[in-house]
Amino acid sequence: MIDAAAQRLAGHARRTPLLTSPFLDEIAGRRVLVKPECLQHTGSFKFRGAWSAVSALAPETRKRGVIAFSSGNHAQGVAYAAQMHGVPALIIMPSDAPKMKIDNTRALGAEVVLYDREREDRDQIGATLAEERGLTLIKPFDEPLVIAGQGSVGLEIAEQAAGAGVTRADVLVPCGGGGLTSGVALALEARAPGLRVRPSEPEGFDDVARSLASGRIERNPRQSGSLCDAIITPQPGQITFPIMHRLCGPGLAVTEDEALQAMALAFARLKIVIEPGGAVALAAALFRPDALAGDAVIAVASGGNVDAQVFTRALDRFAP
Amino acid sequence: MIDAAAQRLAGHARRTPLLTSPFLDEIAGRRVLVKPECLQHTGSFKFRGAWSAVSALAPETRKRGVIAFSSGNHAQGVAYAAQMHGVPALIIMPSDAPKMKIDNTRALGAEVVLYDREREDRDQIGATLAEERGLTLIKPFDEPLVIAGQGSVGLEIAEQAAGAGVTRADVLVPCGGGGLTSGVALALEARAPGLRVRPSEPEGFDDVARSLASGRIERNPRQSGSLCDAIITPQPGQITFPIMHRLCGPGLAVTEDEALQAMALAFARLKIVIEPGGAVALAAALFRPDALAGDAVIAVASGGNVDAQVFTRALDRFAP
Repeated sequence: MIDAAAQRLAGHARRTPLLTSPFLDEIAGRRVLVKPECLQHTGSFKFRGAWSAVSALAPETRKRGVIAFSSGNHAQGVAYAAQMHGVPALIIMPSDAPKMKIDNTRALGAEVVLYDREREDRDQIGATLAEERGLTLIKPFDEPLVIAGQGSVGLEIAEQAAGAGVTRADVLVPCGGGGLTSGVALALEARAPGLRVRPSEPEGFDDVARSLASGRIERNPRQSGSLCDAIITPQPGQITFPIMHRLCGPGLAVTEDEALQAMALAFARLKIVIEPGGAVALAAALFRPDALAGDAVIAVASGGNVDAQVFTRALDRFAP
Repeated sequence: MIDAAAQRLAGHARRTPLLTSPFLDEIAGRRVLVKPECLQHTGSFKFRGAWSAVSALAPETRKRGVIAFSSGNHAQGVAYAAQMHGVPALIIMPSDAPKMKIDNTRALGAEVVLYDREREDRDQIGATLAEERGLTLIKPFDEPLVIAGQGSVGLEIAEQAAGAGVTRADVLVPCGGGGLTSGVALALEARAPGLRVRPSEPEGFDDVARSLASGRIERNPRQSGSLCDAIITPQPGQITFPIMHRLCGPGLAVTEDEALQAMALAFARLKIVIEPGGAVALAAALFRPDALAGDAVIAVASGGNVDAQVFTRALDRFAP
């Protein structure tokens, strides 16, 4: 399924490079290779899964349109994938999502419906609207076609890491519901078994790390209140968790300040823009050296959709 | 020579992608394709020319070391290329160059000597030191091996633009002494004759545009005082100007504010970090629509080595 998704994505998704800097290597004490999915269409890896799902629909089904819930990155990915297919998209977004993500989703042609993350049930809102209009739901992570699309990141990492002479390393992946993490883990299992995925999360929202440790799905006590909004989900998915449990090493957690510092270093050393949630893997690569094995580490920078105000704060406090 | 340089660069320089955004297309009124050389090693295209020159030296000559003068990006390119070859580098930099560029050049293993841009003659300082130590001078632009290295950007643009279905377009290139501009122009003459290079400069420092208009080398009245420090040179080169005169369309000039606005848009829409001098071509692509021809434009984002303070100012004033 990952190979098939990669074929549907060819010529539509961007093949992002692997970036490096001697300055980051020095901080981490090992080689650091960064996969900047912030450079993907719509500014995050989510475009891959969205395109994978939309492109796989039967034309008659697709024509009626698609629906998605998302704090922002999946929203933009689905909106743009639908727009490029010429079909309508309806996106259910939390009212506290970053303004830029809401604005961008609308600008990419989608209809946006806002809901209250603490008080309302997005699943119910979505189900009602989907039934009324005959829309197909594109789930953000617990959907095989979406996982397969995100897995194309893993296929590229396997090739690019081998090209850089790296065949044994931890691969740190920012993890919300686990779509990207499980997709990359499946791709690497087949193509680069010496590369082991480690889910990376913000402290206080480390449901995946705790679930991996206990062997069963654990929930986050809070659903909001993190700068790392892009990767905050209640719990790992029913489909993604068993994959992660089988294939991933222990999870890693970093503080918000460490994520902001990683953003400032990515600005200065890689010339890329990462959002807080997209920076947790790079932060773990740089600031958790003792938790990692080997002389190289690969970190996925999963998205770059950050308000200028938050980015400026990261630079003011942490730019080298 | 460009093909030979590209072969020496293979596996050492990064092949940067071509980035796009529907938001930028809408502003420009045509398709905008951005070649982000800020993602190149050391944060600018200068690494290509430096590697091309250092790698072409005879081993005995190279062993004694290299010397360069530069406001910053050529400095870092030469320092890193020398470090990767295991040979010493001495860099003569103006004392008003951005602090980050001076610090980075030292951190990349080079010895840095500072001079006063208005009062001292860098050529004389450099000549004396080079003779004392037997160093080989790597000129920043008026050197065939350097031009050939920068030309590899043009080879990539020719291939990537064809892949995106663009065979006729203006290619806007930030232009200082003309090394990148003339190298890209030569590559496109051979590989994509429908793509025409247009040098892009800051207003008040448009020596190349004026030289192209008059048909002879014209000087800038001032040598400093621009945020676009990376591309401020006294005049076009003796080797680069005839190439540009033969191959380039008319030059374009933008204001500093337009360059800052292009930086803010690149942050928001492409998730890349560009410095003011590296943003003038994107600024011209976005804000000079009537001066361009065709339904697509290609802009090189030539570097990203900008102090956090300047970047923050761009975001505060112009982030969408």
